[in-house]
Amino acid sequence: MTELNGKPQSRLIPVIEIFGPTVQGEGMVIGKKTMFVRTAGCDYSCKWCDSSFTWDGSGKSDIRQLSAQDIYNELLQTGGDTFAHVTVSGGNPALLPQLGELIEVLKRQGLSVALETQGSRWQDWFWSIDDLTISPKPPSSGMKTDFTVLDSIAAKLAERARHYSLKVVVFDDADLQYAAEIHERYPNIPFYVQAGNGRLHETDPGMMLPYLLERYEWLIGRTMEHRRLKQVHVLPQLHTWLWGNKKGV
Amino acid sequence: MTELNGKPQSRLIPVIEIFGPTVQGEGMVIGKKTMFVRTAGCDYSCKWCDSSFTWDGSGKSDIRQLSAQDIYNELLQTGGDTFAHVTVSGGNPALLPQLGELIEVLKRQGLSVALETQGSRWQDWFWSIDDLTISPKPPSSGMKTDFTVLDSIAAKLAERARHYSLKVVVFDDADLQYAAEIHERYPNIPFYVQAGNGRLHETDPGMMLPYLLERYEWLIGRTMEHRRLKQVHVLPQLHTWLWGNKKGV
Repeated sequence: MTELNGKPQSRLIPVIEIFGPTVQGEGMVIGKKTMFVRTAGCDYSCKWCDSSFTWDGSGKSDIRQLSAQDIYNELLQTGGDTFAHVTVSGGNPALLPQLGELIEVLKRQGLSVALETQGSRWQDWFWSIDDLTISPKPPSSGMKTDFTVLDSIAAKLAERARHYSLKVVVFDDADLQYAAEIHERYPNIPFYVQAGNGRLHETDPGMMLPYLLERYEWLIGRTMEHRRLKQVHVLPQLHTWLWGNKKGV
Repeated sequence: MTELNGKPQSRLIPVIEIFGPTVQGEGMVIGKKTMFVRTAGCDYSCKWCDSSFTWDGSGKSDIRQLSAQDIYNELLQTGGDTFAHVTVSGGNPALLPQLGELIEVLKRQGLSVALETQGSRWQDWFWSIDDLTISPKPPSSGMKTDFTVLDSIAAKLAERARHYSLKVVVFDDADLQYAAEIHERYPNIPFYVQAGNGRLHETDPGMMLPYLLERYEWLIGRTMEHRRLKQVHVLPQLHTWLWGNKKGV
């Protein structure tokens, strides 16, 4: 564990995965060449979370407390001279005020930074993120959106942020209805719906693909006929099409 | 055929397909819900063109000369009240100065407009396009890029355009080398590489899929290790994964 120039240990960041470069599989920068840093810990516990090892205890032994500089060094060691973009995901990285330091370190190196969070907490460093995805969770998740918080995040982003979007994962018609409500509440924020993955325990990528194609086609069909969802992107998770539920790709 | 308030017939637009709404399968607005207008005619004849019916004579009987208003009416009739975005593709729509009128009609209706062209011709209406993709063709196409023209287009877009990108279709290592050269020549333009489809005559989507996955994974692998391709998106053509080589989807 690295000392941070005498700063207290609370500035360290709980990291559960660092990998890449690979392609971003989903959302507003789908296809982008990026490194990934996955933080541990979440204030949510979505029923279908595809990264539940970050919060359910199953990945506990993989969690390391790292400084911003440690993380940057490991990114360099892993990705070498091949990358210019880093994605921070979780868990919910917005639980960590000290992430601001990592974002500063990365930007000082000329790297651009993407981050995904559910919109349950604000951090001032949101304004420094190059590609910020706010992903409120629909009814199928079992979570309840606090619209007071989400409204306030949307208002703050409108003040200063450059490139951000809303993304809703959709499993069924109730989720799609929720997606339409989110889109109508924040009509000026670029909007994405994403086909949900309900087969998190399938280990054979070849078995996943027909299922994922069917789910994506279902979501396309429902969205295309939808009068309340016009300025919308409908996307799959490309990494699951390629690699199924494999971690670290 | 509609009269255009006494304007000469040369203002009509040669259209070969109008369809949608569907998802944009590729490039900078991948996943976007959109209507498609495909114009006929091209100054190129790429070996692997996936829309060669627009220029090789095989689709001649489908070409209609339509006014901007005719096209808008047909978009409404086809898409009803479900869409807010229209994509113009070809052929090479940049051959048609009179397309400016269609873009005006669409924007007056509050629709946003995407357009794709190879970058062999400039039109002043490029500045009015919301999502403009310039897609110069790599060596495998058999075409040769006129860099004097491409440089001048890039310079004009830098003056005034808001949201544009470069996209290169890649079949092999020579194409990837060309992609790296394009990216280095225009480092400030968002850059996309796309896995090429070399099986244009396969009619069974199920037979396409393993091939397309392999091609996309190959391109990801080559791009991830590439030091000259850092700020880059690597994308498939989603529509071919879903629907193979089917037209009109």
